[in-house]
Amino acid sequence: MRVFGIDCGTEITGFGVVDSDDTGRVPRLVCKAMGAIRMKKALTTAERLLQVFQELDAQLARWNPDAVAIEEVFYSVNAKSALKLGQVRGVALMAAASHGILVAEYAPLKIKSSVVGYGLAKKEQMQFMVARLLELTELPEPADVADALAVAICHIHTAQTIAAQEVGR
Amino acid sequence: MRVFGIDCGTEITGFGVVDSDDTGRVPRLVCKAMGAIRMKKALTTAERLLQVFQELDAQLARWNPDAVAIEEVFYSVNAKSALKLGQVRGVALMAAASHGILVAEYAPLKIKSSVVGYGLAKKEQMQFMVARLLELTELPEPADVADALAVAICHIHTAQTIAAQEVGR
Repeated sequence: MRVFGIDCGTEITGFGVVDSDDTGRVPRLVCKAMGAIRMKKALTTAERLLQVFQELDAQLARWNPDAVAIEEVFYSVNAKSALKLGQVRGVALMAAASHGILVAEYAPLKIKSSVVGYGLAKKEQMQFMVARLLELTELPEPADVADALAVAICHIHTAQTIAAQEVGR
Repeated sequence: MRVFGIDCGTEITGFGVVDSDDTGRVPRLVCKAMGAIRMKKALTTAERLLQVFQELDAQLARWNPDAVAIEEVFYSVNAKSALKLGQVRGVALMAAASHGILVAEYAPLKIKSSVVGYGLAKKEQMQFMVARLLELTELPEPADVADALAVAICHIHTAQTIAAQEVGR
């Protein structure tokens, strides 16, 4: 299974591609790609959104994932920030739909629990655990990239749990 | 000048195409097209956003406007609504950018003042004045379509005012 994780932001949108190799007894996670899309400040908002779309579109075409995983939004932000974030998120969701890929959404608490083991993990702990689970030699930077990889890992863990429960029935 | 107005909503997104014919002494406004994109409830959020994008993309390709005009968002809504609206708006802005068309944004008060003459106009007054300015035989329905035509008219009025000021210098 190949999962494309996206972490939308109003300045940087992180993405990461994680494969789960299920041939062994313990599924192994492999990071195939990661990156950060930094919106160019010289562009208008509409052009920045096009930039995010075009980069995600190219990555989705290149990696052809089975699913896209994205964080559910955190409503503690104010309406102005939510609108700006929503604009980026809309473009990301649409990019997935344009490739016919289903999108799974996970709450921040669920993602942290799935990766670090508890829901109140800090940014550095997330980066450390993502690097460890994916056997990366360096911490994924910026944190947006680690978050994108984390939501992809969360989706793989969730899918494996569901599969295991179905076998157990 | 041809302006494509868009009124984004979480259920219905209205659009309208308005031409301003400047050959006479008094510029005449002509409505070339209008419509409402109703998000299909059976679709996922990502698929709905793709639906909005594809319909706007097709209309922009068909009408080839000089500018896209869109309402600035009203921050009195809560963060959850702002996020949902932002997702649609992101896709609409991106559609304009993908055609290389500049986007002009106008505050609701400015749009109402420009169309009805005062900023606190009600929905029915807006529909009535839009119909009158564009010499439509029926009121544009739903109100989202009237709002899309209104923001297009606002852009034309604003561009004419700027042009007149430049001539007067």
